[in-house]
Amino acid sequence: MSRVVSLAVIPGDGIGPEVVTEAEKVLDAAVAGTEVTVEKTRFSLGAGRFLETGDTLTDEDLAAIKGHDAILLGAVGGVPGDPRLKGANIERGLLLKLRFELDHYVNLRPSVLYPSVPGPLADAGAVDFVVVREGTEGPYVGNGGALRRGTPHEVATEVSVNTAFGVERVVRHAFDLAEKRSKKLTWVHKTNVLVHAGSIWQRVVAAVAAEHPDVAVDYLHVDAATIFLVTNPSRFDVIVTDNLFGDILTDLAGAITGGIGLAASGNINPDGAFPSMFEPVHGSAPDIAGQQKADPTAAILSVALLLDHLGLAEEASRVTRAVEADIAARTGAARTTSEIGDAIAARLQA
Amino acid sequence: MSRVVSLAVIPGDGIGPEVVTEAEKVLDAAVAGTEVTVEKTRFSLGAGRFLETGDTLTDEDLAAIKGHDAILLGAVGGVPGDPRLKGANIERGLLLKLRFELDHYVNLRPSVLYPSVPGPLADAGAVDFVVVREGTEGPYVGNGGALRRGTPHEVATEVSVNTAFGVERVVRHAFDLAEKRSKKLTWVHKTNVLVHAGSIWQRVVAAVAAEHPDVAVDYLHVDAATIFLVTNPSRFDVIVTDNLFGDILTDLAGAITGGIGLAASGNINPDGAFPSMFEPVHGSAPDIAGQQKADPTAAILSVALLLDHLGLAEEASRVTRAVEADIAARTGAARTTSEIGDAIAARLQA
Ligand SMILES: CC(C)[C@H](C(=O)O)[C@@H](O)C(=O)O
Ligand SMILES: CC(C)[C@H](C(=O)O)[C@@H](O)C(=O)O
Repeated sequence: MSRVVSLAVIPGDGIGPEVVTEAEKVLDAAVAGTEVTVEKTRFSLGAGRFLETGDTLTDEDLAAIKGHDAILLGAVGGVPGDPRLKGANIERGLLLKLRFELDHYVNLRPSVLYPSVPGPLADAGAVDFVVVREGTEGPYVGNGGALRRGTPHEVATEVSVNTAFGVERVVRHAFDLAEKRSKKLTWVHKTNVLVHAGSIWQRVVAAVAAEHPDVAVDYLHVDAATIFLVTNPSRFDVIVTDNLFGDILTDLAGAITGGIGLAASGNINPDGAFPSMFEPVHGSAPDIAGQQKADPTAAILSVALLLDHLGLAEEASRVTRAVEADIAARTGAARTTSEIGDAIAARLQA
Repeated sequence: MSRVVSLAVIPGDGIGPEVVTEAEKVLDAAVAGTEVTVEKTRFSLGAGRFLETGDTLTDEDLAAIKGHDAILLGAVGGVPGDPRLKGANIERGLLLKLRFELDHYVNLRPSVLYPSVPGPLADAGAVDFVVVREGTEGPYVGNGGALRRGTPHEVATEVSVNTAFGVERVVRHAFDLAEKRSKKLTWVHKTNVLVHAGSIWQRVVAAVAAEHPDVAVDYLHVDAATIFLVTNPSRFDVIVTDNLFGDILTDLAGAITGGIGLAASGNINPDGAFPSMFEPVHGSAPDIAGQQKADPTAAILSVALLLDHLGLAEEASRVTRAVEADIAARTGAARTTSEIGDAIAARLQA
């Protein structure tokens, strides 16, 4: 009955290692005494590795990572403007490369406003929705280029590539999720401007919606969606959208639910062909790195998503409940990164 | 000394005609007794015209509009889902066509939070910034297409086209504006993902910034910009950004400053080669059309931008002051569209 889960751990840069330490602490506490053993392999990847070796993600790294059941990632990215990183694009070469190579087509980003958490909205109401962001298409494909670079006649293109195949699989996933939640789905795009991509989305949503007559479906342009996120966020339950719009909406969603210190995400390959990757939405925040100032909660909630993805629903919900209890007990007094991790782990042991 | 200004008026659809009526009322009051006479030509354009004649914007319409000094537009767009509009894209065929044909490369969108206006943020602070949105490039160029449309193998592209020429002229405009305001400029893009377009923006901003050593410049990724718009909007003064990011950020900005019922915009051709166009940021809102429920303030503030663009700074600021006084005097009691227009016009006459 015992089960071994192999986990690739990528602490990364900046506050990444600090928050990952706490996430691992909570993961260990969650599986302690169960049939599950987690075997971890650490991968040194990110700006730090690049500065040391010049590598971003080698074929060997990628092959080794692929051999794991799941990935836990802290955050990657060096100090902005570091001249030694000029020409390196850690985000594209590492984070996005992993999402694309591992076919993470569902980028799952839940947003919950906990009653005790101060948010920027005067009257947010109850906020509890999930953004299903497409993760392998759209303007993120890296398809573009420049002509006459560096001259006054320079032309640069960025090509958003969208496929019926790619849109359908993520839309289906979102409808399945809506069936398990409040049966309400909002799809977001900019169909009046991006007419070709928008047309795929429109037809795919209509077709999948026809198979889910019990799910209420509405559509918002991305600009209108940002308005509703600040004026009436409780209108949302499941949002499904394109890669770039999902990036924007989930940062905004994080902000209205008390900051991206709490926002977790899963980069999921639902087919199981490749390991899924779990990471806080926040970045590496080099300005506060190593100071025990970062909130590890987003990383810890990412562990809950990870456990859930591995089919360990009971362990996942214990982590979520421990986090909720910790958040509810927050007094506003400053705690270090490890104090927060310790407190949440202790609730799991209790 | 007398001056005749020729104005093309496009009332449009939905609430467009109602708000334009009030905007014209205020415009008339603003120039009454001055040396300026406004000669108006009305153009019937929008979903209504399309349903009647099948035309969106004919060459004759365009040529006639080009013969004017400026354009005042209400809002265009039919009832969403109207089967008779299937295949028509009024936004692309009319609104965006005008912006592109008339080379409106500066899309100017000020955001001011008036003290008496209730906004969604608990503690917004003083909000007063301007977004300079590029208007003729980026993902709005209509460059894209679909392959194997309607099959499971469909591929659709949307090509964002960006030029050094196009970026430089709008960035220069934004720096000039920053010089006249608080000498603080934030440029927004997504340079870590859209590397080719982002690289043009990065190099152009650096070059123009070098000519403006007194302007403090910072950069935000678009996702981070949405966070700051809700957590610390008073950090912004002049924002310059790409067409799509500008679309998203200005709707959000409108929301945090009390709703897009107050958000004005100018689609400006600073060279004066073509007439500039002034319009509220809001849409045609067919659901409340003809009911005198729409707030004409955004359209009226667009008249202030129009007057300013025509070099009538004194008249422009009288309109702005009348609107500010009207907003300050609002009690929350419902007023009709024309009551609001009347009240603002009366303040100008006083
Ligand atoms: C770092 C960046 C490439 C990334 C993205 O744009 O997806 C980040 O913003 C995120 O949301 O995970
Ligand atoms: C109607 C639409 C094409 C337009 C845009 O996206 O520019 C609108 O949202 C705006 O902001 O003026």
